[in-house]
Order: sequence, then C-alpha cells, then structure tokens
Amino acid sequence: MEKLLYGVAYYDEYMPYDRLREDIRMMKEAGINVVRIAESTWSTHEPQNGVFDFSHVDRVLDAMHEAGIQVIVGTPTYAIPTWMAKEHPDVLAVTAKGPGQYGARQIMDITNKTYLFYAERIIRKLIGHVKDHPAIIGYQTDNETKHYDTSGPNVQLQFVKYMRETYGTLDEVNRKFGLDYWSNRINSWEDFPSVVGTINGSLGAEFAKFQRKLVTEFLAWQADLVREYKHPHQFVTQNFDFEWRGHSYGVQPAVDHFQAAETFDIAGVDIYHPSQDNLTGAEISFCGDMARSLKGTNYLVIETQAQAFPQWTPYPGQLRLQAFSHLASGANMVAYWHWHSIHNSIETYWKGLLSHDFLPNPVYDEAKTIGQDFERLSEHLIDLRKRNDIAVMVSNESLTALEWFKLPGGKTYNDVVRWMYDELYKLNASCDFIPAAYENLHNYRMIVVPALYAVSDETLKKLNEYVRRGGHVVYSFKCGFANEQVQVRVSQQPGIIQEACGISYSMFAEPSNVRLSGDSFDPTEESSGVHTWMELITPTTAKVLAYYDHPYWSRYAAVTCNRYGEGTATYIGCMTSGSALSKVLKQVLKEAGLRGADQELEFPLIVKSGINRQGRIVRYYLNYSNKPVDFVYKHGAGQELLHDVPVAAGQLLELAPWGVKIVME
Amino acid sequence: MEKLLYGVAYYDEYMPYDRLREDIRMMKEAGINVVRIAESTWSTHEPQNGVFDFSHVDRVLDAMHEAGIQVIVGTPTYAIPTWMAKEHPDVLAVTAKGPGQYGARQIMDITNKTYLFYAERIIRKLIGHVKDHPAIIGYQTDNETKHYDTSGPNVQLQFVKYMRETYGTLDEVNRKFGLDYWSNRINSWEDFPSVVGTINGSLGAEFAKFQRKLVTEFLAWQADLVREYKHPHQFVTQNFDFEWRGHSYGVQPAVDHFQAAETFDIAGVDIYHPSQDNLTGAEISFCGDMARSLKGTNYLVIETQAQAFPQWTPYPGQLRLQAFSHLASGANMVAYWHWHSIHNSIETYWKGLLSHDFLPNPVYDEAKTIGQDFERLSEHLIDLRKRNDIAVMVSNESLTALEWFKLPGGKTYNDVVRWMYDELYKLNASCDFIPAAYENLHNYRMIVVPALYAVSDETLKKLNEYVRRGGHVVYSFKCGFANEQVQVRVSQQPGIIQEACGISYSMFAEPSNVRLSGDSFDPTEESSGVHTWMELITPTTAKVLAYYDHPYWSRYAAVTCNRYGEGTATYIGCMTSGSALSKVLKQVLKEAGLRGADQELEFPLIVKSGINRQGRIVRYYLNYSNKPVDFVYKHGAGQELLHDVPVAAGQLLELAPWGVKIVME
Amino acid sequence: MEKLLYGVAYYDEYMPYDRLREDIRMMKEAGINVVRIAESTWSTHEPQNGVFDFSHVDRVLDAMHEAGIQVIVGTPTYAIPTWMAKEHPDVLAVTAKGPGQYGARQIMDITNKTYLFYAERIIRKLIGHVKDHPAIIGYQTDNETKHYDTSGPNVQLQFVKYMRETYGTLDEVNRKFGLDYWSNRINSWEDFPSVVGTINGSLGAEFAKFQRKLVTEFLAWQADLVREYKHPHQFVTQNFDFEWRGHSYGVQPAVDHFQAAETFDIAGVDIYHPSQDNLTGAEISFCGDMARSLKGTNYLVIETQAQAFPQWTPYPGQLRLQAFSHLASGANMVAYWHWHSIHNSIETYWKGLLSHDFLPNPVYDEAKTIGQDFERLSEHLIDLRKRNDIAVMVSNESLTALEWFKLPGGKTYNDVVRWMYDELYKLNASCDFIPAAYENLHNYRMIVVPALYAVSDETLKKLNEYVRRGGHVVYSFKCGFANEQVQVRVSQQPGIIQEACGISYSMFAEPSNVRLSGDSFDPTEESSGVHTWMELITPTTAKVLAYYDHPYWSRYAAVTCNRYGEGTATYIGCMTSGSALSKVLKQVLKEAGLRGADQELEFPLIVKSGINRQGRIVRYYLNYSNKPVDFVYKHGAGQELLHDVPVAAGQLLELAPWGVKIVME
Repeated sequence: MEKLLYGVAYYDEYMPYDRLREDIRMMKEAGINVVRIAESTWSTHEPQNGVFDFSHVDRVLDAMHEAGIQVIVGTPTYAIPTWMAKEHPDVLAVTAKGPGQYGARQIMDITNKTYLFYAERIIRKLIGHVKDHPAIIGYQTDNETKHYDTSGPNVQLQFVKYMRETYGTLDEVNRKFGLDYWSNRINSWEDFPSVVGTINGSLGAEFAKFQRKLVTEFLAWQADLVREYKHPHQFVTQNFDFEWRGHSYGVQPAVDHFQAAETFDIAGVDIYHPSQDNLTGAEISFCGDMARSLKGTNYLVIETQAQAFPQWTPYPGQLRLQAFSHLASGANMVAYWHWHSIHNSIETYWKGLLSHDFLPNPVYDEAKTIGQDFERLSEHLIDLRKRNDIAVMVSNESLTALEWFKLPGGKTYNDVVRWMYDELYKLNASCDFIPAAYENLHNYRMIVVPALYAVSDETLKKLNEYVRRGGHVVYSFKCGFANEQVQVRVSQQPGIIQEACGISYSMFAEPSNVRLSGDSFDPTEESSGVHTWMELITPTTAKVLAYYDHPYWSRYAAVTCNRYGEGTATYIGCMTSGSALSKVLKQVLKEAGLRGADQELEFPLIVKSGINRQGRIVRYYLNYSNKPVDFVYKHGAGQELLHDVPVAAGQLLELAPWGVKIVME
Repeated sequence: MEKLLYGVAYYDEYMPYDRLREDIRMMKEAGINVVRIAESTWSTHEPQNGVFDFSHVDRVLDAMHEAGIQVIVGTPTYAIPTWMAKEHPDVLAVTAKGPGQYGARQIMDITNKTYLFYAERIIRKLIGHVKDHPAIIGYQTDNETKHYDTSGPNVQLQFVKYMRETYGTLDEVNRKFGLDYWSNRINSWEDFPSVVGTINGSLGAEFAKFQRKLVTEFLAWQADLVREYKHPHQFVTQNFDFEWRGHSYGVQPAVDHFQAAETFDIAGVDIYHPSQDNLTGAEISFCGDMARSLKGTNYLVIETQAQAFPQWTPYPGQLRLQAFSHLASGANMVAYWHWHSIHNSIETYWKGLLSHDFLPNPVYDEAKTIGQDFERLSEHLIDLRKRNDIAVMVSNESLTALEWFKLPGGKTYNDVVRWMYDELYKLNASCDFIPAAYENLHNYRMIVVPALYAVSDETLKKLNEYVRRGGHVVYSFKCGFANEQVQVRVSQQPGIIQEACGISYSMFAEPSNVRLSGDSFDPTEESSGVHTWMELITPTTAKVLAYYDHPYWSRYAAVTCNRYGEGTATYIGCMTSGSALSKVLKQVLKEAGLRGADQELEFPLIVKSGINRQGRIVRYYLNYSNKPVDFVYKHGAGQELLHDVPVAAGQLLELAPWGVKIVME
Repeated sequence: MEKLLYGVAYYDEYMPYDRLREDIRMMKEAGINVVRIAESTWSTHEPQNGVFDFSHVDRVLDAMHEAGIQVIVGTPTYAIPTWMAKEHPDVLAVTAKGPGQYGARQIMDITNKTYLFYAERIIRKLIGHVKDHPAIIGYQTDNETKHYDTSGPNVQLQFVKYMRETYGTLDEVNRKFGLDYWSNRINSWEDFPSVVGTINGSLGAEFAKFQRKLVTEFLAWQADLVREYKHPHQFVTQNFDFEWRGHSYGVQPAVDHFQAAETFDIAGVDIYHPSQDNLTGAEISFCGDMARSLKGTNYLVIETQAQAFPQWTPYPGQLRLQAFSHLASGANMVAYWHWHSIHNSIETYWKGLLSHDFLPNPVYDEAKTIGQDFERLSEHLIDLRKRNDIAVMVSNESLTALEWFKLPGGKTYNDVVRWMYDELYKLNASCDFIPAAYENLHNYRMIVVPALYAVSDETLKKLNEYVRRGGHVVYSFKCGFANEQVQVRVSQQPGIIQEACGISYSMFAEPSNVRLSGDSFDPTEESSGVHTWMELITPTTAKVLAYYDHPYWSRYAAVTCNRYGEGTATYIGCMTSGSALSKVLKQVLKEAGLRGADQELEFPLIVKSGINRQGRIVRYYLNYSNKPVDFVYKHGAGQELLHDVPVAAGQLLELAPWGVKIVME
C-alpha cells in the first residue's frame, strides 16, 4: 500500500439514473480514494451465455482513474445469472435441505464442473479485459465464499474418494470414526451412505472439514486464474467473513481462514458490528486481529457498515471511532458497504454512506472528516506493525465438533471464544489468533485456548512442551476432550494436557445454583455464578484458584493453576461471568509480565498500539462509551495526531464520548 | 333486503341423525330467518365424477321454505372431493412449500383447467337445479377464497406472460424491478426463473399482486356463471375474510377486497374476534367498516361466532352486544357459524349456537332475545345509512411490501393499520376504508394513512392536492417511501408528500429508550415511549408537535403538522403508544371540525350512528366493559328502541355491563 | 428369576481397545451379574449381505459365562446396516416428512417385506447360533420398537384394506368418521386418499391406532421367531419405552403397551428421569407401575441411567435411592445403559457407569454398594408381590385424540395423566395401570380416570356399573367426551358417565383469573387457581365440592362428587393445582378406605411395599429430598435390611438425604 485506503463498494449497475460524475465528486469530497466494483454483477457482464459486456466496468474504471480513485475489481462468481440456472439447473447446490432454488446469491455447487467452466470463462474474460487499466490496484476473488452446504450425490462421491485417500481402508475408517455404533459400519466402499443423514458426529465433522477444503481449493483455483493476468503491483485478496449472528460474531464455521488465506497476497475481511448504545469495539478488534493473523501483517477492511440497519444508524462520533479502531488493529483500508443505499431487493435497509436520496447526511459529513484525517495522517498511520505477546488458539475442527455436541443452553464454540476474547479485549491485552496447527508457540508469552475440543495428540503435547519451556497457557473447560476424529480420549480428562495442568476429572455436570468460592471469589456475589458447564476437577499438583460452592460438589476444583517446568497452565473448568474470568486472566497476565501501563486502563477505554513505518510508537486511545473519560498518559512525550498537539508524559488526556486520540511517541 | 336477517350456517350433511324438523323448530324459536347451505359439501353433491345428488339441498330448501326461513346457497368449490384428487392429482396447488396433499379445503390451484372444468360443471348443475326455489334469496360463490399460494410451473408461466403484457420488454422489467442486483438480470424471456426463490421484494410483491388478481378473476368467473341462472331478486355475494391472527385482524393479504368485490351485488364477510375479557368491539367495527366500504352500502355478516373456541365462550350479554354492534356498523345480516357444533374433524371445538348436544344453552337463550329484537325492530334498524367524514386509506401493495421489509420486531403493515384504526375507534371517530386508487378524496374531510409504503406518484400527488384544497391527512411513518414496484424513491423522504407535510428525512433508526417530548408530550411518562421505528425528521415549514427525547437525536422531529393550502398534513414519524397517537388524532379531528357530542364519549363507551329508512337518526350506545357506565344524551328527544322508552335531550342514560341502548331521534 | 439382577448394557463392538477381561473384573467388583448385548450391532453381525460373523457375541458370552455373569441377547433389527440401505433404499420408512435418509436407527418401514426378509434371516442366524449357550437367560426382541410413522403408499394401501375389514362399507366409514365434513367423503375405495394430509382427527386417530397395531404384529412376529429356538428356561422380553420429554414422561403414543406385551414372557422397560435437585422418583414409580401392570407381575428395568447427561450426574446417594426405588415398584432387574461411556457419535454425552476413561468414579463406587446389597438381600427383595386397590385407567386412543385436539397451552393427554398420577404418588397411594378395555374393574376399590376422551359406550357403562356396585371413580375433565372414532357424543356431557356422576354440562371455557371456591377451597389462595380447561357444570344429583370463583361463571360447579348405588363418582371439571387435586383425592381415598398408616406420610417421604417370596411384608422408605427426614414406624416389628438392625413398632426412623430404609415385617 502506498497510502491508507478509504473506500466504498460501488455499483454503477444498480443506479436508478446516471450518477457517476456526481458520485465521484461527492467521493472526492469525502476523501474516498478506492472503490471495489464488479463482484456481484455477472448477469450484467454476461447477459447471455457467451455474450460479454463490460461497459459498466470500463466506464467506472475510466472515470475513477480520471478522478484519482483506485479500483479493486472483483470476480463476479458468487451470484450466477438467470440463464445459467435455466440452462443448467444442476449448477445449484443440493444441500441437506434438498435441491436449490434460483433467487439468492451463493446457491451454486462450487464443485460443479459446468459452473466452474462458466466461472473460469467469465474470470478470464473480465480480468483479461481490465488487467492493464491503471486504476486497478488489486483483485478480489469471489465474495464471502463458503461451501453453501453443497452435499448432493456428486459431493458425496468426492467425499468417499477423499476418505479412501485419507484413511486408506474401511477398517481404518470404521475404527477411527466409531462406525460400529448403531450399525453404521461400512464394509464395502460401495455401501458408503450419504452423510447428510448421519448421526455420527465424527463422520459429520469430517464431512464439514472436507467441505471447508472445497472452499480452500475453489479460492486457490480462482486466485491462480487471476494471477495469470494480474500485474506484479496488483494484489489478489478475498473478502472473508465471520460467523454471523446478526453481525460478525466469531470464527467462520464454513471456511478454514488460515488455510484459505494462504493463496492470497493480502487478507480482506468484512466486519459488521452492533452500534449505537451497543457499540463496544469488540467485533472490530476480534475480526481485525483475525484478519491480521491470517497473513501476519496488515489487512483490508473490504466491507464495514456506514449507516446499515436502522438499529445501527451511528451516533455522532461513532463512525470516526470505528474507522480509527480499524487502523488501530492494523487495517490499511477501511471501506464501506456501500456508497449508496440500494433502492430495492433484499438489502434495501442495509444502508450505505448515502441514503436512498444520494444527498449529504450526517454520516456522510462525518466520513468527510475521516477521509481528510486519513489523507493527512497516512504516512504515520499506514502499515502499523503489531507485535503481540498473547495468542488465542482457535480451531474450526473444535467449532464443528461443538456444533454436534452443543453445550447446555445451545451454547457453541464461538460463545466460549468470545467469552475469553472479550475479556482480553477489555483488559487491553492485545492478541493474535493462531490455528491449532501453529508451530512457533514460543513467539508468544501467553496462549489462551478456548474449548479446544477436537484436537490431535501432537497439538496437546506441543502445548505441554510450551508450558514446560516457560509459556503461560489458559485453558477453558472442554479442552483436549476429543481427538481430531471427535473421539473422546480414553484417558482421564483433560486429555494429555492434564500433565501440564496438574489436574484430572472424569465427571461433569450442568451447573444449577453453583458459584465459585476461593480467595478471589466470594460465593455470595452474583459475579461468582457458574453456568452452562462445570467439570468436577481433582487437582493433582495444581493450585486451586476456585472451588465450587455447592452442597455436593464443593470438594471439586473449578479453576486451577499449575506450575509446570518454567511456565504455568491455568485451567478454567466452568463457564463463569466475564468479571470472574477477568480476575483469572489478570493473574496470568501479571505472571507472564504482560501488565503494562496500557493494561491499567480498561474498557470502555481501549488502547491499541503498534510501530509505524518511521519506527515510532503510535497509540490509539478509544473511548467506547457515551461519557467523557480521562486518563494519565504514561509514555514518552509525543504528538496527538488528530489535533496535532504535543503530549507530555504524565499529562492528563481527556476523550470525548465516543472519542479518539492518537499519540505518536 | 326486506328485513334484518338473523342467520346460521347449516349443514344437514354433517348431522349425526335426522334433526331437520327439530332444528327448524329451534331456529324459529330463536328468530333465525335465514340459513346458508351447501358451500362445503361438493363430495355429497357429486359423490362420483359426474354423478350428482342434491337430495340434501332439496330437503333443506323445502323444509326451510315451509318454515319461512330463507336460504343462501353456496357454490361448493372450495373443498374438492376425494375422487378429483385421485383422478387428477395436478389440481392440487404446488406452493412455495412444494406439492400439495389432499386433506384440507382450499388446497387446489384455482387456475388449473381440470379443476375449473369440474367447478363449472358442479356450479351449473347445482345452481341450475335450485335456482327456482322460492326459499332462495341469494348465492355465495365459493368461500373465503384466496390463492392458496399457488405458484407451480404453470402459474409461473402465466406470470411471465403477465409481466410481458404489463411491462412490454425485459429492459423495462430489469429496470423497474432492479434485477441487476445480485445478478438477477433476465436477458431472455426463456430465462425468467420461478420467483418462488426470489430475494427481490419488488418481484415478489408483483407476484403476490398477480396472485391476488387470480382470485379476482376466479370470483368474477364464478359470479358470472351464477348470474346465468339467478333470478333478479336473488343476490350474489362472497364471504370475504381478513388477515387471521387467531381472529380477524386486518387487511386480507391474499385478496384485493376492493377489486374482488366489484363483481358482487352485496359484500359478505366473516368476522371473528376475541371475547370474554378481551371483547372490545374493535374487530367488529374494523371488519364492518371494511365490508361496508367495499360496495359503499350495507353488508352481510355471513359468519360470526356464537360460542366458538373455549376462550371465546361469551359472557352473558356479550352475544347481544356483538349482534347490535354489527348492525351499528351497517350490517343487514348477522349469521353465526354455525347452527350446531360439529362432532368431529378439525373444527370440533369451533362451537356453534348449539353445543354438540343440540340442547338449549345460555348462548342459544340469549340468541332468542336477539332474534326477537331483530324482528321487532327490523324496519327501524335495517339499511342504516352511514355517511362518514373520515377515511382510512389501505393498500394491499403496501401490506405485501412490508411483508418483504418487516418492521423491527416483526411488525407488519396491519400492525400499523390497527394501531391507527383502533384509536379512531376508541374516539368514536367513525370511518370508511378507501383503497389507494380511490378518486374522490374530497368526499372526506380527514384521511388517515397508515404505512402507505409502496405507492404510485399519482396517489401521493393526489393526496397533496387533497390537502391543498382543504383536506386533513394524518400519515404514519413509512408513507410514500417506495413506488408501486417497491423501489425506494430517490428523492428525500417522505417522497412527494414532503411537499404537503413540510418535512424531510433521509435517516431513521430503531428506537431504544426514546420518548416523545413537546407541549403535549411529557418524556417522563410511560405513554410517551417510542418503539419499532423512528424517522429523523427535519421540518421545513411544518410545526413540530413532538421531538425525540434522546441524547443524540433530540434535534429531530417525531410528529409534525403542516398547514398546506387550505388543509393540514400531520406526519407521525414513529410508532407511539395508543394514547400518544390519540392526542394527535384529537387535534386533527378538532381542526377538521369532527369532534361532536359523540366524540366526547370514549371507549369503552362506543357510539355508532346512521340514518334509517325513515330518514331518522339511529344511535347505538355500546358498553364494551364489565362495569355499568352512564352518560348524558345530548341529542334531540327520541325513543330507546330496545326497551321502547322515550329519551329526552340531556337525560342521563345508563348502560349495563356489556349493555346496549339504541336511540332513534 | 432365581436372583435379583443387577446389570448393564455392554458393547464389545464399540470398545476402543480390548477391555473384556478388565471390564468383567470391574463388573464383578460392582456386583453386576447380567449384561445385555447385541441389540444395536447388525452391521457387525452381518458385515455384508449374507456374510455372518458372531465372534463378538461368542467371545462375550464365553467370558461372561466364565465369570458367572448372565447374558440377555437382543435381536439387532432396530438399526439396519449400510449395505441394506444401499441395496434396498425402499426399506427406509416414508413418513409424513417424506422419504427417509440413512444414518440413525429406527428408520425402516417395519412392514417392508425386504426388511422383514433380512430381519428374519439375522434373527434365525443369531439366535440359532447362540441358543444353547449356558450364559443366556433370555432374549430381547428389537429395541424400543415403534412404528417410526411409516406411512408411505404401501402402508396407506394396507390401511385401506384394514378399514374395509374393520368397517365393511364406505357408507359405514363415511358415517363413523364424519367424512362428509369439508367434502372428505369417499365414495369408492379407489378414491381413498393418503391420510398423511388429513384434517380429520377421527381418521387420523384410526391411522395411528393402525400404526400401533403394526408394532404389536411386528413384535409378535419376532417373538415367535425367537421362540422357535429358545429353551424353556430362557425368557423373551422387549424393552418398552415411554413418551419422551427429555426423559421418560408418560404413556407411549406409538405403541399400545398392553397389547404389544401379550406376546412376551416378561415386561422390560427403560426408565430415564430427571436427577440432582429434580429427582422425585415419580418417573421411576410411574414407569414401574406401568411395566408391572403389563403382565401383572415383576418386570425388568432393562435400561436406566447411571451418569447419563451432564444435568443428571447423580448426587451422592441418588444412585442407591433410584435402584431400591425400582425394586420397591416390583422390578427384578435394574440395568444401566450402559457400562461405559461411548467415545463418539450421538450418545457420547449419555454417560454410563464408567466415564470415557474406564476408571472407577464416585458413581461406579456407589454402584458397588448396590451390587453388594442386591446380592446379599436378593432372597428377601426378589419377586415382590404388589396388590394395589387403586388403578389408573389409561388409553392410547384418548392420547392420540388429544394430540389432534390439544388442550389450551398445548397441553396433552399425558399432562393430565401425570397431573393425577403424581398426586397419587405423593400421597403414597400405590396403584396399577389398566387399559380402557380392562374387564375386572372390581379388582380395585378406586379407579382414577384421566382425560378418557375417546372411549366406547361399553367402557363408560362398565364404569357406571362399577360405581353402582361400590367402586369409587375419580374422573378428570374431558372424560367420555367422544366415542372410539373420536366423534363427540351427541348427548349432554360428560357422555354416559353423567349418570354416575350426577352432573351435566354443554359449555366449557379456557379459564382466565378463575379460582376454586368451596368448603375446602379458599379462592384467595394461589393453590386454588384453575388453568387450561374448565367445564361449566350443572349438578343434578351430585354434591358440589368446588364452584368457580369468577364474575360470570360462579354458578357452575368445578368439582363434584356423587353417590351412585354403592359407590361414588367424583368429577373434576377443570385443571387445578396439584395441591387442590390432592385434597380431592384424599377425600376419595378416605371414602374408599384407602388411607392407612403409610398414607399419613407424604412426599418427599415415599413408602412402597409388597409381599416377598417368604410371604413377609417388605416396606421401602425412600427420602426424595436433600434433607434428613424422620417418621414413626407404625407397623409390626421387623428388620431393617440394609443395615440389618431390628425395628420396633412405634420406633422413630430417620432417613438421610436421598436415603433408603427397607423394613421387613
């Protein structure tokens, strides 16, 4: 990146009347310097089978270039044209819910060869057509790609072949996947049933992994195609999204982000989050940390909200707070979905920077200040290098396994991930994400491991070794319970890590009227409540941080900490309140030497920092509340960049409601 | 009508033993003077394909005639016989849920030619057979007809032809329906996909409109058939029903009542409403006002409840109150569904006037008093002419559009309609309903417009002009937002009517902890709460009646009133409590000169009035509460008809709990 | 039985490694003396079509026999192998939800001849192979057999034939099933539609009865097959289960237990119940009473919970309390599902006696004490004869009918059954279950009849006669309402039994703010509340025990009692609190002379008794609470068996929390 990118998605195709010149004029006024185009409009590019028309693309490229606005071009493959659905109904994915129906995007079988034939042709035609245009800085392949649960007979056949390649023999499959149970044993490859109806979570989880592999392969195939055309200065990216609960929530179930990201030059993500009174910044931080971790460097926020839903219409100041929060996590681009609100169809109420009337409005006016600041401060804020001592270990396999074996109350993997991540966030304990297969654990001084339920022996041993050599691990309940085929370990629990944790358990319960008791936990307090899950832990060498307060289970430990070799392993055997978890995390942070001046500040005052291109420390102070807050600046003298005023060590700084300050030391 | 009709639905076919004579004896005792027959019993009329047997019909006609009870004969087409389903499975409607299954009524494709062949034959046979019978006063075509979401391939084909006829070219279709979005563009008529899976609300809404058209055509076709046989003194009617939420609730989504009613001589409806402690009379009034408005004159209540569900078993007095409430809205007939309770199948607990034991019971006993009063007072109460100065403008198109774009909390069009209607009702502000296409707005002094979301420029301009020339309009939020293809207007909002309203907005939000503040609204009061929706309104020439009480949005108006030309336009930009809305309505009523003596009384004391055949004013006083109420009669001297006592101007009148008085001036 | 059986289900096939010797060692240590095997593992027994391998069975039989552990062998037919699903997809049941999918157990069409061919072959092969093994004491046919809603075209065809055989003519069918309604009349057998879509509850209920008949026939067919091989000393049983609401709840909807049990030598059941703070013993008692009633003698608890779900992990003492509670109801075997926890697939969290780690744990340790006590006390506790004076009359037909006609709030038949049963249980009023067709009512002094909604004239007359000759009946609301074709009676209600009850009603309502008032009921008390249903009863000769407290319905009776002949008939016309019902039951128990010393004790102190083989009275005292309780022992001197100490008449006995004492007089 040569400069901070401030962008929007732009659809000339959807315009009710010709607005290109006026839109560009208003974009320039707002400091918009990049647009993303073309990723949803296959039926405009190819109105009939084999008939191509790139006039919209051409005119936008030319006009943007003339105005000095850069362009990211998307391949349009995630929404198929009507002619394809009519000519080849088999391109629609057959899922567990039955055959597909035309209408929405993301309804095709990404393994269907007819679809792939047309996808390849439009990619070659479009990218071949535009590749030399000077406006283009990069390409996005497809959009928010997932496997759409494609699981028809052809996919089942591929899965059988995958199983044979992976496991060799049916004896191995039967044994590893426990197929004797309920007479599910397969004794001839021809008998392999569709897994759509399976009740075997091991097999179901393997199929989900196979489906995620289809996504990785599909994206790599697209990226390779694009690379045949692209110039060296142009990047290829993808717009990854997250588990969706009305907003970006957690680890994406349908894609292995770490594997899928390998093929790309730079990671792109979309980040949507609650707003108004519910704006906390946690999702901006979570998704940003994930995006940064995928390639270990800066990333693009390809989509985030401008006005979006009625319940998200931002309060004054929030759009600015959000934009700088993205930068604070390492983003080099902040782009809105989308420029203008669309006048009909399903996303009518997902509003853009402009309302349907295309007129300036308070949100657009606030964007103008952001655009100006981005431009003015680009050299200081771009390419923020972040070096974190804490990692959160995440696992698609554990996520899927816990979909099969939901926690009481329907709680899932991401509930545990967010429970732990959010407390780190509130403590200003900045972190990366790592996959379970991550090798260099010693890059970190502390690793937080939520619900690592389905995991290989190797990973668990690696974690033990990490502790032995001085690392600090915090495990939640359910860690190590099953192996990578979602077979529960036959040892005592927590499997393998019991060595480092110095505990064991073989029983567990759903808590009812259970609280924590211990030196730091007063069972009479509401915040000591335990819910969802509790393991009845017996310490061997571990120190007990909390017991259960309960008539029958008070002799079991709830939270333990064990010194093992040079490090410590903390185990939290139950789901607690955020504040109880926070107490535990603080102790480990302290033990790991990770409680600096910034960690004395806590949510709603968020601090994020990094090193800029000039090698100077840049610290973002973000006020996620509707009240002013102040704090003593405890670092070396510097400059507050937004207001361009000097800041002295020890100076009291004040943040307005939803306010931001950026101090460069 | 020569006299007030007091009736029941009667099914000789369903009788466990021969009861005809005894039933007629008991009917006579209760003053029942009309029965409706034959509308559900095709399989009895035509036990095998082409074999006809009208013996049940004949014997009932003869016996009723002998007893002086008149008969309405229904065509039996809404429930097909088993032989038809077996011989022609394709008559079952294919819907968005898949192929149909035999069992229930209302499961056929009303466009299927095989079905229509058989329907025509049974209509010709039945009506041809009975037409000269002296007992018959009229015919009902089909029953509670809707389109049953018929949307199989044949219906999709008809829809494509309809689209071509209506819009001419695909370019026009693509543009008007915004099909470029998500690659939904259609570039060849052959490519037109089934709209069952569409995510394009514009297209989906057009299909719903097309489906409603199928109902209009089907009913007109039936009525034309019947008219080939009927005598001039016999009427043709239809039994329309309403949006169903466990009871009649609002505008019917699947039928355009105004269009469908055109073919009929008189409107008929069924009205079911909450009872016991939840009886308010609002549904009786709502459905009655709609029925009356369809043909601009008196109507038939073809079905209403006697005992019905266990939760509706009426308290003493309620059946009387209900019956006279129907008359007060302009009904010329009140008929129960049904005479006796059915002993098995799905409506076993939808009880009739008689329980399953056919014996007199308290409800039947109360009906006897009604029958006597109807007969005694028929000449005074029949053909009540009602001339209202207020109209509520309703729109099937807006209803469908808001199904696609539901309000937060899942609230829909009818929630807004009832929110506004119910407050008018409680204020005794009597009204008609008019469709958006209604031409003679100046027949009214005040028009209330709930959520007129999808509406043509013409209608909005007509409303502006109406105000300019002296009319008073009250708009809710969401009015004018989109055009007739559910495309959001590209102008500022509220599109076009902003001229008369003197306001504009381009942003909106879902309120959380928001209240009204203003001269008439105290933000500390519960009743000032705002929920579901709020538009951030900036007045241009309008006077602000209420602002939002909120930390960030207090500068925006919530409720405004604008003098425009000779009239006023009031705009309510958010959903408020009933009592807050009531305050606004009262101001407009006052402005429009519509606050008379009757409007000083309020719910639970309901007043309805009209002019009878003799040209005398008849006023119904209805006590919708379980406590006695009294009030001062402020009109000219008259006679209280039920007790046949004189009433003087200024006299204090008392109503018993659930009591009724009818004063003829 | 020669001794009390203490058992587990055991699956050598599912073991992650060879554990047979070690498992047997641990079983012996816990006093386990019987295992059930082979009922879920067809694909292991017959890995390919026609290839058989009983090596797992053989090795387990040999090893168990060597250890002195007896074995029950199950036929493996309830879970089909993959090869069968692939070779013959038509064996999968087509249900109301559509075609079946392979994966789970219990998915086949139990009438499919291909399935039956294979089922017969595996039964003959397996049982023929093992029949002479000395370890085997009995066989279980299939498992938790139901009809799985098989209702495809072939089943519909069978149903039509069944209807013709049962009712002879279509005229009879049309009349008895009220098919004229909504044009459902069938005038030619060929026209008989699939009943999957029917809205006629009479027809739907008949189909459900037909489906239950399929289960009875299937089980009898299996039992006959097994009997061709079994030795005289070996029994044939079935593992019946109950309506499932997260645990065993009530009468099984899909099986007529009384009819299905006829073919078996001894009844077996599985019983799962809430635990921890929610352990009341009510389900153990309910299911045990049902199991005992099926064959009128002792029964086997083939499955019950050890650790099971996280929310059921037993508190210390609960496993013992449960085990002896089973014996107290007449069980001769208590067996856990299952020995060890399974390491993957759908029942991973349904934990056995051992956790996944196979190590001793607190639950296993408690089981050891049970095993020792069972062995030591077997001669005293086995074959407990129970002679009850109270029966609860239950009816699959009424259950199904009330599925079609649900009570308000979605309440069903079993809600009424459990409402009544649970109060008897709490009063220590020990009872049997009898079907509606039961002949010898005079075996009982009191019969409780919950919601006997769909019932023949004969049964009701028999109940009248029972009262006349001195019996005491307690009816709930809804009794006698409809006949066996779910046709509401045309008489006044309650049909036929109004004679014995001395009441009538023809109206009913859903209560809202209604309470009982009367000598024993104070309407100001919470416990006098009435919910769900109320019948507006007029007494003829009955004494009113309670009226309704309500502004409009206070003149109607809620609860009545009538002396009729030598007996009494009590009628409870509404759903009350448990404590209000308890008051009524106590009065009847007193009247019937059924309030002895044990009935002075009440829940949580449960008393159960019977006569042992030696003819001595054995009394179980069971403390279903987490607090100690004491009581005065009011019977003759005896011995407390568990602690082997003498007990004197009048002695104060104390029970620990969740404690048990067993006194043999």
